[in-house]
Amino acid sequence: MAEQPLFDIEEIVRESFDEEGQEQLTEKLSQREPEEVALALEAMPVEQRVTTWQSLPPENQIEALTFMRVDARENIFKQIDDDQLFQLVENIDVDDLLELLDELPPAVYHYAASRLDESQRRWLDTALTYDDEQCGRYADHDLLIINRNAKVRDAIRLFRKLTDEAEYQDSLFVVDRTGRYVGLIQASQLLGVGSHTSIDSFIDSDAPVVEGNMDLDDGSDLVYRSGYTALAVVDADGKLLGRMSIGEAMENMRRSMESQFMHTAGLDEDEDLFAPVVDSAKRRAVWLGINLLTAFLAAWTIGLFEATLEQVVALAVLMPIVASMGGIAGSQTLTLMIRGLALDQIGPKTYFTLLYKELGVAAINGLIWAIVIAAITYLWFGDMIIGIVIGIAIIINILIAAVSGVFIPILLDKLKIDPALSGPVILTTVTDVIGFFAFLGLGTLMLLN
Amino acid sequence: MAEQPLFDIEEIVRESFDEEGQEQLTEKLSQREPEEVALALEAMPVEQRVTTWQSLPPENQIEALTFMRVDARENIFKQIDDDQLFQLVENIDVDDLLELLDELPPAVYHYAASRLDESQRRWLDTALTYDDEQCGRYADHDLLIINRNAKVRDAIRLFRKLTDEAEYQDSLFVVDRTGRYVGLIQASQLLGVGSHTSIDSFIDSDAPVVEGNMDLDDGSDLVYRSGYTALAVVDADGKLLGRMSIGEAMENMRRSMESQFMHTAGLDEDEDLFAPVVDSAKRRAVWLGINLLTAFLAAWTIGLFEATLEQVVALAVLMPIVASMGGIAGSQTLTLMIRGLALDQIGPKTYFTLLYKELGVAAINGLIWAIVIAAITYLWFGDMIIGIVIGIAIIINILIAAVSGVFIPILLDKLKIDPALSGPVILTTVTDVIGFFAFLGLGTLMLLN
Repeated sequence: MAEQPLFDIEEIVRESFDEEGQEQLTEKLSQREPEEVALALEAMPVEQRVTTWQSLPPENQIEALTFMRVDARENIFKQIDDDQLFQLVENIDVDDLLELLDELPPAVYHYAASRLDESQRRWLDTALTYDDEQCGRYADHDLLIINRNAKVRDAIRLFRKLTDEAEYQDSLFVVDRTGRYVGLIQASQLLGVGSHTSIDSFIDSDAPVVEGNMDLDDGSDLVYRSGYTALAVVDADGKLLGRMSIGEAMENMRRSMESQFMHTAGLDEDEDLFAPVVDSAKRRAVWLGINLLTAFLAAWTIGLFEATLEQVVALAVLMPIVASMGGIAGSQTLTLMIRGLALDQIGPKTYFTLLYKELGVAAINGLIWAIVIAAITYLWFGDMIIGIVIGIAIIINILIAAVSGVFIPILLDKLKIDPALSGPVILTTVTDVIGFFAFLGLGTLMLLN
Repeated sequence: MAEQPLFDIEEIVRESFDEEGQEQLTEKLSQREPEEVALALEAMPVEQRVTTWQSLPPENQIEALTFMRVDARENIFKQIDDDQLFQLVENIDVDDLLELLDELPPAVYHYAASRLDESQRRWLDTALTYDDEQCGRYADHDLLIINRNAKVRDAIRLFRKLTDEAEYQDSLFVVDRTGRYVGLIQASQLLGVGSHTSIDSFIDSDAPVVEGNMDLDDGSDLVYRSGYTALAVVDADGKLLGRMSIGEAMENMRRSMESQFMHTAGLDEDEDLFAPVVDSAKRRAVWLGINLLTAFLAAWTIGLFEATLEQVVALAVLMPIVASMGGIAGSQTLTLMIRGLALDQIGPKTYFTLLYKELGVAAINGLIWAIVIAAITYLWFGDMIIGIVIGIAIIINILIAAVSGVFIPILLDKLKIDPALSGPVILTTVTDVIGFFAFLGLGTLMLLN
């Protein structure tokens, strides 16, 4: 039976700090899957990361890099000299090269490309006709291809050549003489079939096909839903470009969901835990700047009511409550909408059903919490009117938050702006400005006369 | 070549509103994968969802339900009467029953269980010894099992029995006489092997094994990283319980990442877009209540400085800026930490490296934005000291936000509380209270003397 399979990243990181144990660590890592090595390297501060990575055997070095998030990978490249980079890519294959392309210095990339054999060069050129959000760019070229005129024994010969490291290779991809994809054959279909039989009658041409210009997310969904372990990726003429395996589909899905999560804080899914301070500061500064604009807008709204605040200072004390309740209620609607949009579950036919539902929820919660907050305010400041003012402001702000939570992400999505990235900032601006305006405006009307 | 494979949920939803086109819609849906049907049903308001679901053939009804998010599924169950439920589960298999178990009325569940055959009943009893976060609970019982003494022809016979719908079934799971798992055999290994040969020498016993009591996330990672299309799930004695396929691993990963995303807004990954208003309002009320507590804490902090605010109303105007900048900076650190913790990439050895890095980032951004904000404040209010006060408060709050962003999630994780759910609320409380306290406190010291 296999040994304890779970991978302890914490232990690996601890050992990377121990210079004398480096040899054992290398030994341990070279037995693990590249996904795991990549996770462990990302979990190390840059110094330990580079040392540990350099101690790996060359083939594992490249493998680990391809599984690392871009920034973490880049922070290794920055620490090693060009000589080592040239050496590293000496025997790189086309798939790994495509994965690392954007982070390699141009000279290193050209050297690597020049060392590919002719068929790999052709793959490279074709892949580069697609952009880096398209399936054609990342079609996996490690696949078993067979001509439709072949016999079962040819198929068997192909499967025999698979090494132990072959992943999700239970199918042959069948092409015609011109290289057009015809269908696939699963290994189990050929069991017990005479070796001189033609493969033709075993071809499964019902399997869906990933188009090269399909978006990575769509292609990954297609592979996942198809139930096949890999699908063919084809160009506009139906020529076989490569395959997308379920492993790649899963990696794409992970990346896409991680990016959604990180975007809500204005970060990128490639953000490195141990990025250099200055790099990190630069990237985050932009986000803080954008948020500062919205904060000043809120402050400006408050500024309109300086005269009121001077007379009723309780309003200044209470105003964050109004803004905060609107912000929280709105972000719940927003989050639900962002997920729905990501899953393509929201369309014009249901915009208003969603709006009415969210308004219903907002009305109930607005009313309940308005009463609670009004009561507490009355007890705190002994002033019934301030209680009424804050209660009404809360109801208004939570209702507006519901409308904004529904329509801001729909609008952003239509404009092809990621609602996970921009939605929260815009929503907060709305709930802050409306919250302060409603509360201080009502306060001015009801308390100053 | 296969027809246009992309699935247009919007079109399906539109058609579900058209009562006369129901027949065509049913026809269209019964040709799609159950994952897709589930997504489309979730995207419909409850009325359309129920009608459309009811029009599906019985076997598709159950399949679609098992792929739906729990709340969306439950909202179908609520609309149909018990008779239909009893009919629905008449021929349900054990895996689907385990998936729907929590939403079925007890009487319906017992009826369904009573109709399972003996071997399925045994699977059910064993599965129920595991809780619903463990791999043993959801082991897939649709797998090819073979005795280690069998011959290749027996293996071929098993593969032949597979239907077109079999997914990720390229391996046999080999057991000994007592039902203990020994290893697996991939179909391609047996190609061209004589039918009387014993299967023994083809057994791959290096494939990792998923333990029944393993957490679903860990099991899914294991399947993904292994590169196999499915791994055996075994009990504490090594007996084969079933398998976990890469498809299930992917579904688990999706669910787990979705839950992280939804938790940041206090929602559940099972939240239904079209949940009944009252249900939704109830669930969200709790989250608003928790956030209200923190808002009152912030208000109370401001209340400490009423006397100051009465004299310098500019402080009231500016105070949201201080709180907001701290909140944004902190949430960036927090988000990075939450991802790191979810990937097990953060341990004691690097706590302080992370802290120093985040403090470095905070120092740079704190300083830059403090200067900008101080300058704008000076221009706005023409008072240098207010500018200095807000500048210092910004720096303090951003630094505190960095410390909190690093340690709040670590602490929550140690306490086994989901940092994605509770982290943002606690962080906002800290940055609000510290922000208001620093700003108004400094204001009191520097402006009132």
